[in-house]
Amino acid sequence: MSQFFTHHRRVEFAETDAAGIVHFSAFFLYMEQTEHAMWRHLGLSVFPMLTSVGEVSWPRVAASCQYRGPVRFEQTLEIHLRIARLGDKSITFQYEMFVNANKVADGETTTVCCRMSEGHKIESVRIPDEVRAKLTPYVRA
Amino acid sequence: MSQFFTHHRRVEFAETDAAGIVHFSAFFLYMEQTEHAMWRHLGLSVFPMLTSVGEVSWPRVAASCQYRGPVRFEQTLEIHLRIARLGDKSITFQYEMFVNANKVADGETTTVCCRMSEGHKIESVRIPDEVRAKLTPYVRA
Amino acid sequence: MSQFFTHHRRVEFAETDAAGIVHFSAFFLYMEQTEHAMWRHLGLSVFPMLTSVGEVSWPRVAASCQYRGPVRFEQTLEIHLRIARLGDKSITFQYEMFVNANKVADGETTTVCCRMSEGHKIESVRIPDEVRAKLTPYVRA
Amino acid sequence: MSQFFTHHRRVEFAETDAAGIVHFSAFFLYMEQTEHAMWRHLGLSVFPMLTSVGEVSWPRVAASCQYRGPVRFEQTLEIHLRIARLGDKSITFQYEMFVNANKVADGETTTVCCRMSEGHKIESVRIPDEVRAKLTPYVRA
Repeated sequence: MSQFFTHHRRVEFAETDAAGIVHFSAFFLYMEQTEHAMWRHLGLSVFPMLTSVGEVSWPRVAASCQYRGPVRFEQTLEIHLRIARLGDKSITFQYEMFVNANKVADGETTTVCCRMSEGHKIESVRIPDEVRAKLTPYVRA
Repeated sequence: MSQFFTHHRRVEFAETDAAGIVHFSAFFLYMEQTEHAMWRHLGLSVFPMLTSVGEVSWPRVAASCQYRGPVRFEQTLEIHLRIARLGDKSITFQYEMFVNANKVADGETTTVCCRMSEGHKIESVRIPDEVRAKLTPYVRA
Repeated sequence: MSQFFTHHRRVEFAETDAAGIVHFSAFFLYMEQTEHAMWRHLGLSVFPMLTSVGEVSWPRVAASCQYRGPVRFEQTLEIHLRIARLGDKSITFQYEMFVNANKVADGETTTVCCRMSEGHKIESVRIPDEVRAKLTPYVRA
Repeated sequence: MSQFFTHHRRVEFAETDAAGIVHFSAFFLYMEQTEHAMWRHLGLSVFPMLTSVGEVSWPRVAASCQYRGPVRFEQTLEIHLRIARLGDKSITFQYEMFVNANKVADGETTTVCCRMSEGHKIESVRIPDEVRAKLTPYVRA
């Protein structure tokens, strides 16, 4: 059985729009903030991330969201983060977002482990072992 | 052969992040701004949209983006918008984003035609005919 | 002696810019979030605010910030909110922002108590007594 | 007689809030975008700015806005930028914002000319002469 990481986030007024609900782009901020909170929980920072193979960064290659219902000012989102796929070099995070136990959105982001190589070119690299070990409990069973 | 609608958008400084490139969430703003520019080009406003069947709104049910390369401050995005699917009640917009003719991102948003019914409940409705007629040239062949 | 209201806020990645620090506009979000947290602490919501004289709203008439030093990703701001002036119809909030006990910014926002009058015109009104009573302890001595 | 630099900016939907109008923080984005458009008009980029004395940057030390009236989705702001004060090392920009010739906001930002010194410490420096020459026509008489 996989664990999930839980993050709570209150909706701020600036995140609403003239339709009276949270703007669809804000859900991507909520996802990112949940991911970053998980890295901190694991004792890591996403920027910069210092590892056994040097400093790595995690550019995103994909992000998506399905919207199940409106979210409003001052509601609190409960966000569950699991790892849908832990590849050699990439991670696909999966987010379920709830307000008062009602699902309001499902999201995914995919991010690739990268390192500066000689000549300052970015190249994808294998996820360092100690990072992989910390992520493994969150991989969806 | 389908047409596409073209929108140009310069990257603003506030859209960059500490990694030195455009934050991944900003691409969803670029998509929305392109969609809204197309509505204006068609003589319509997305909010509120006054039609032959009354006022309709277009809540989003899905949004996604694949990132092909970094985008930087003051670069100009050229965004091509087509309609991937024009359903009875929904539209799936498809966006290709370029900087200097290099593809930097592909995106999609899906939005549903809705109307306030009696008792102020939102319900999905058929896309009004005159709106459908205006969108048809942009439907992907 | 006046009290101040304290709010803590971690810097999120999307709030940084390509200069590697928090974008200057984000401090206005931090101020607003602190103000709204104070209203909640007082048992009120800023939107909508239901009072003894009906529903009131609080449009801003001024906002300002002085920047004392850079703020970076994942730092935690400690924000102290006092009331610089509690007028008949307006409030001037004063914010001091700290990172690790170093002042990083000073800010102010001024907001006016308003109500919908007949014919849906917005007009400024006296701050309801029970709201004023809750704010008074925070007025700068 | 001083000149002013004019910038036009359409309000995007994401900049509105649940009160149905542009969020107060967005005006600071409009100011910055106007400033950056002026730099481009003068043949310069604000980031990085390459000058006769090396690369300089322009951290902000102050920003303020007075709000005169609500601004709504799809309205076009006309923004007039002048320089209120051109100091030895700093610039105070002054912005007047109009919708349909009605003043909707007044703003100011103050920014200081800085350079990396030895040891990577940021220090304020005199505004390079060729930059000063380009700005002078915009100084308020």
